[in-house]
Amino acid sequence: MSWNKVAVVGAGLIKFGELFEQSYEQMAAGAFEAALANVDKGLDRRSIDAAIVATQRGTLWGQEGIGGNTVPSALGLSGIPCTRVENACPTGSDAFRIAAMVVASGVHDVVLVVGVEKMRDKSAQEGLLARAASGHPLYNRGETAPVLFAPFATRHMHEFGTTPEMLASVAVKNHHNGCLDPYAHFQNEITVDQVLASAPVCRPLRLLDCCPQTDGAAAVILTTAARAHEFTDKPVYVAGFGVATDHPYLHEKSTFVGLPATTAAAERAYAMAGVGPGNMDMAEVHDCFTITEILDIEDLGFVDKGKGGPASIEGETALDGRIPVNPSGGLLAKGHPIGATGVAQLTECWWQLREEAGERQVAIRQGYALQHNVGGRGSGVAVVNILTRNRT
Amino acid sequence: MSWNKVAVVGAGLIKFGELFEQSYEQMAAGAFEAALANVDKGLDRRSIDAAIVATQRGTLWGQEGIGGNTVPSALGLSGIPCTRVENACPTGSDAFRIAAMVVASGVHDVVLVVGVEKMRDKSAQEGLLARAASGHPLYNRGETAPVLFAPFATRHMHEFGTTPEMLASVAVKNHHNGCLDPYAHFQNEITVDQVLASAPVCRPLRLLDCCPQTDGAAAVILTTAARAHEFTDKPVYVAGFGVATDHPYLHEKSTFVGLPATTAAAERAYAMAGVGPGNMDMAEVHDCFTITEILDIEDLGFVDKGKGGPASIEGETALDGRIPVNPSGGLLAKGHPIGATGVAQLTECWWQLREEAGERQVAIRQGYALQHNVGGRGSGVAVVNILTRNRT
Repeated sequence: MSWNKVAVVGAGLIKFGELFEQSYEQMAAGAFEAALANVDKGLDRRSIDAAIVATQRGTLWGQEGIGGNTVPSALGLSGIPCTRVENACPTGSDAFRIAAMVVASGVHDVVLVVGVEKMRDKSAQEGLLARAASGHPLYNRGETAPVLFAPFATRHMHEFGTTPEMLASVAVKNHHNGCLDPYAHFQNEITVDQVLASAPVCRPLRLLDCCPQTDGAAAVILTTAARAHEFTDKPVYVAGFGVATDHPYLHEKSTFVGLPATTAAAERAYAMAGVGPGNMDMAEVHDCFTITEILDIEDLGFVDKGKGGPASIEGETALDGRIPVNPSGGLLAKGHPIGATGVAQLTECWWQLREEAGERQVAIRQGYALQHNVGGRGSGVAVVNILTRNRT
Repeated sequence: MSWNKVAVVGAGLIKFGELFEQSYEQMAAGAFEAALANVDKGLDRRSIDAAIVATQRGTLWGQEGIGGNTVPSALGLSGIPCTRVENACPTGSDAFRIAAMVVASGVHDVVLVVGVEKMRDKSAQEGLLARAASGHPLYNRGETAPVLFAPFATRHMHEFGTTPEMLASVAVKNHHNGCLDPYAHFQNEITVDQVLASAPVCRPLRLLDCCPQTDGAAAVILTTAARAHEFTDKPVYVAGFGVATDHPYLHEKSTFVGLPATTAAAERAYAMAGVGPGNMDMAEVHDCFTITEILDIEDLGFVDKGKGGPASIEGETALDGRIPVNPSGGLLAKGHPIGATGVAQLTECWWQLREEAGERQVAIRQGYALQHNVGGRGSGVAVVNILTRNRT
């Protein structure tokens, strides 16, 4: 028996990419209009009771970090209650979870979640310099994201025989899927050989093992399960969700072949939804690096620990595989505009469950989809949301 | 009939000040331990189901902005769901509102809110330089907070005859109250003459018209009204709350003698609580500048528009006045560690309603207290929370 108190009645996003020509607020407005346009029976924007803005790096990249303040006016919603939620890479997915609880609380009936992130207005160098200048505890010591994930790849290879080709197969699959997603940043096929020949970033991770820096925005509209049919005959329900934290420093890690926050978050979400990994028709998971998707599919229970590499290279996670993973192209091809990422993944799940995903549509058999992000210092936080088209 | 679905069963804070010797996580832990110690019947930390961290400037001042990730481990709560909420100066008060809805949603029963902010590890100059370097849209043009509030003072003087002495009387009162609050940053009496002789910052605002830069942390523990008596025989209930946004740029402002976000947030909170300003026994309001408290007490309905200056200088807002305002010392004397500010104000309301505020205790007649913050670009967001000790 799933939670199912809250439904998603609209979702949409803007084309991800290098969006120098759009402001932060314009990106948010574009996503909001896309979500509104996807509400089957229409939804007057004056029906929106409250909003949550998901932005992670509002300050680092030159905004004030007060998107909760500036976004409503740009959306024609000035006056409404609006809050910014931040939770590292799961910022967007956690904002969705918070919004679902806001709706379930009975305080606000129709709640908008807008995930929006400007990643490209500053060069990577400027961003890093600004962070080092402000005393950032990791970046001023060179501890960038690839440096934090590479040891997991090394250890996974050591313990389970995972190969560079297996890692590469994740990037090849997700770039293929991205070619079928009009919203993806990258829409080009790549080969295993190209991945293996790309520049090393932090061994064993190479350039094409890493997600790009991408601007983007996505939005979803939530309401109570009771009111969902005012807006659509095809609502998608929030079956359950889970969040878990973990010790934030690498030296405190209990394992280097898995991310315990993911496992704990998934257990909570499955329990709340009354289902297990075998009930999922597809999943959008956090593939910031190829190794991360391999860890994810193990930690989420889709394959046994250590089997993520073979499962990937053998096509189990392909669009027509046993458990399709990242049909949207994932972070690797669609991009990772942090606050928008989780919201865009949820939009993909919404489309897939409604069987509106076009060429990248997967088979919907049991009616459940899973969305996942992991991030923060030492991958110390993970969020899992489970959606369903089943009413019960 | 108030909302009253959620109760505050513990609250506490650390001494505000220049806390160079404490890390961000240590400050959070100190506040959490203080709140735990104030739970009358005790509360095992393992009973805490989820947490919300309120921090505004996590990135600007050298942290990563991922307090939701790093705080649980420091509190001995690693593993629990934890999210960071940010909403400009109302960050702490909005985190409280979100936590109340999380409890009301039925998903989590016992929720901790920790507000924590490091303001002093960087000098003001370093902070401003870092912001300008990262392209901050206001600070790189010199538009600091005093510059944004001074025009409201000028216009209020022009329209209503408010005087520098009336502004100064707010600082004198709040510094007096701060002398009675062991948690206040400043604990010294000041005089109107001292305020008027202090250095001009942005005319008509002088140094003692401005709140200081303060480090601090505060925490509250929420649970359902049904479970409150497990933890205390003196619960304080969340009667109602309201948030409102407003256009974020000064050129879009409809008035310079009030902050419409405050008025709208208050109307929502009063409606939810089923009360009005006349029912409040005391209030903690956002006195980032002396003029702000004068605007607040008008916008919240405690005095008529334009009467805030005379009401202040005539003692209506003193500890023994008609409506005591900022008995804790307010932002002007207690300090304004942004994410902690609202949570600390709520702690003060909790103590006052429980009649545990010692020398600064005000008369509790009707059993309601109001807490308020306003902030963001152009004061474009305000939050009002109303607490009550009345069960209905």
